[in-house]
Amino acid sequence: MLINRRTLTVEWGDCDAAGIVYFPRYFEWFDASTTALFRRAGFEKHELIKTFGIIGYPLVDARARFILSSTFGDIVDIETSISRWGRSSFDVQHRLLRGDKLAVEGFETRVWAVRAPGEPGRLKGQAIPTEVIERFSAS
Amino acid sequence: MLINRRTLTVEWGDCDAAGIVYFPRYFEWFDASTTALFRRAGFEKHELIKTFGIIGYPLVDARARFILSSTFGDIVDIETSISRWGRSSFDVQHRLLRGDKLAVEGFETRVWAVRAPGEPGRLKGQAIPTEVIERFSAS
Amino acid sequence: MLINRRTLTVEWGDCDAAGIVYFPRYFEWFDASTTALFRRAGFEKHELIKTFGIIGYPLVDARARFILSSTFGDIVDIETSISRWGRSSFDVQHRLLRGDKLAVEGFETRVWAVRAPGEPGRLKGQAIPTEVIERFSAS
Amino acid sequence: MLINRRTLTVEWGDCDAAGIVYFPRYFEWFDASTTALFRRAGFEKHELIKTFGIIGYPLVDARARFILSSTFGDIVDIETSISRWGRSSFDVQHRLLRGDKLAVEGFETRVWAVRAPGEPGRLKGQAIPTEVIERFSAS
Repeated sequence: MLINRRTLTVEWGDCDAAGIVYFPRYFEWFDASTTALFRRAGFEKHELIKTFGIIGYPLVDARARFILSSTFGDIVDIETSISRWGRSSFDVQHRLLRGDKLAVEGFETRVWAVRAPGEPGRLKGQAIPTEVIERFSAS
Repeated sequence: MLINRRTLTVEWGDCDAAGIVYFPRYFEWFDASTTALFRRAGFEKHELIKTFGIIGYPLVDARARFILSSTFGDIVDIETSISRWGRSSFDVQHRLLRGDKLAVEGFETRVWAVRAPGEPGRLKGQAIPTEVIERFSAS
Repeated sequence: MLINRRTLTVEWGDCDAAGIVYFPRYFEWFDASTTALFRRAGFEKHELIKTFGIIGYPLVDARARFILSSTFGDIVDIETSISRWGRSSFDVQHRLLRGDKLAVEGFETRVWAVRAPGEPGRLKGQAIPTEVIERFSAS
Repeated sequence: MLINRRTLTVEWGDCDAAGIVYFPRYFEWFDASTTALFRRAGFEKHELIKTFGIIGYPLVDARARFILSSTFGDIVDIETSISRWGRSSFDVQHRLLRGDKLAVEGFETRVWAVRAPGEPGRLKGQAIPTEVIERFSAS
C-alpha cells in the first residue's frame, strides 16, 4: 500500500487568534496531501482530469479529529494513504504528526466524478479505472 | 432550542478550479455560524473569552457531508443549533441549504477550553457554565 | 458614479495569532466587494463571463494601505467604486471603515481578460464594452 | 544582502474558478516568505516576539504586480529580500518565478510593532534593534 509522507511548517497565517492552527487549514493540508499521494502514484491532478475526463475527485464526506493543537513555527508530518477503494468512491486517511505524537487525524470519502449532464451543481460518480487503483498497491 | 439562520453569497474566491466551493470553506462558514449562534444567544466571542477565562471553544471533531455543490453567485442559508450539551463539550449541527434543498451538513464537537498549564499546545476542557447553556434553551 | 457599500463582521477565522485581521483577508474582501459593485451595476459575475466571453477581470496590480487594525467581532463597512476606466483595464478603489475611521484602503487594477490562444497561463486584455461602463455612471 | 529562496507547488485549493491562482494567496505566500527570510537570518518568528516584546511586524503597505498567472501543479520559486531598513519600518521585496520567468512581484512595508497602550487596535512602531538588521547584511 502506497503511503505519502510530507513535511510542513505551520505558518503565522495558518493560526487563529488563540495562536493555534485554525482548523479548516487542516482540511486544506489534507486535500493537498491527497493530491501529493496521487502524484506519488504517478498521477498529476491536471493529467488525471484531462486523461480520464473527470472534474476531479470531490468529497462527499470529510472528517477530522483534533488531538493536539499546533502553532506557527511547528514542523509537522502528514502521512496519507487510501484505506478503501469502492467502485466509484474511495476513502483517504491522513495522520498529522508532531514529532512522534499524533496531532490530527483526517478522513475523506471522495468520488471519481463527472458533471451530471443537465443538472447544474450535481456531480455523478463513475467507475474508477483499474489502472489508477493498481498504481496504489504497487510500490 | 435556539436556531440561528444566516444567508451567504458564495464568492468567486470560495470556488476551486472546478468552479465549485472548495470544501474547507464550508468549515470556515460553519465556524462563523457557531459564533453567530452564540451571538444570538447573547454572547459575543470576545466577551465569552474575557468573561469566562477560556481560550475559546476549539474543535475536537469536525465533519461534513457534501450533497450538492454550489458555485459563485449562489445564495445559501445556514441553519445552526446545538444538538448536545456535555459537561465540558458540546455538539453543533449545521445545515446549509440552497433554496429548499439540503446541500451540506456539518457537525462539530467543541470543548469549553482553557490552556493546560505547563503543557504547550495542550488544551484542557472545563465545565460549561450553566448560565451559558440556559441561554440556548430559552427563546 | 456608482458606489457600493457593504457591511462585514470580522470573524475569528479572519484573525492571526496577534488577534488582528490577517492582511490577505482584506484582499479577499475587496475582491468580493468588486463583485458586489458589478452586481449593483446589474452584472452578476457568472453572467458577465457567459455574456462577454471573458474569463473574468483578473488583477494586474493590487495594493492596500493598512491604517488601523481590526479584530474578531468588529463590524466594518467597505465602500467600493471604479476610479478609472481604460480601454481594456480599470481601477477599483476600496475604503474599509470602522465607524467613521478609515482603517484600510485598497486599490486594484484589473483587466477585462480572455485567454491568449496557444499561450498557457497568459491572459489577454480586450476592449471593455461601452454598455458595461455606462451602467457605472448611471444611477 | 541576505536572499531567501523557497519552492512551492501550486495547489488545487489555491486556484479560483478560472483555474488560476486566486491572487490573495500570493500575499499569503509572500508573508510566509518574509517569515522564512527571518528564519534564515536566525530569527524564528515566535522567538522574535518573545525576545523583543513585539506583536510582530505587521504591514502598513502591501502591493503585488501580477504578470503571469499560474495553475495547480505548477512549481514556483519565491526570492525574498529586505530592500530598505528604516528606523522602525522596513521594506520587503518578493519575486515569484516560474522557471526563469518573473510571474509576480510583491512589495511589503512592515513595522516593528508593539501595541499602543490604551488604544485598542492601534499599533505603534519601535526602533528595530541593530542586532536584527546586522544579521541580514552578514552572510
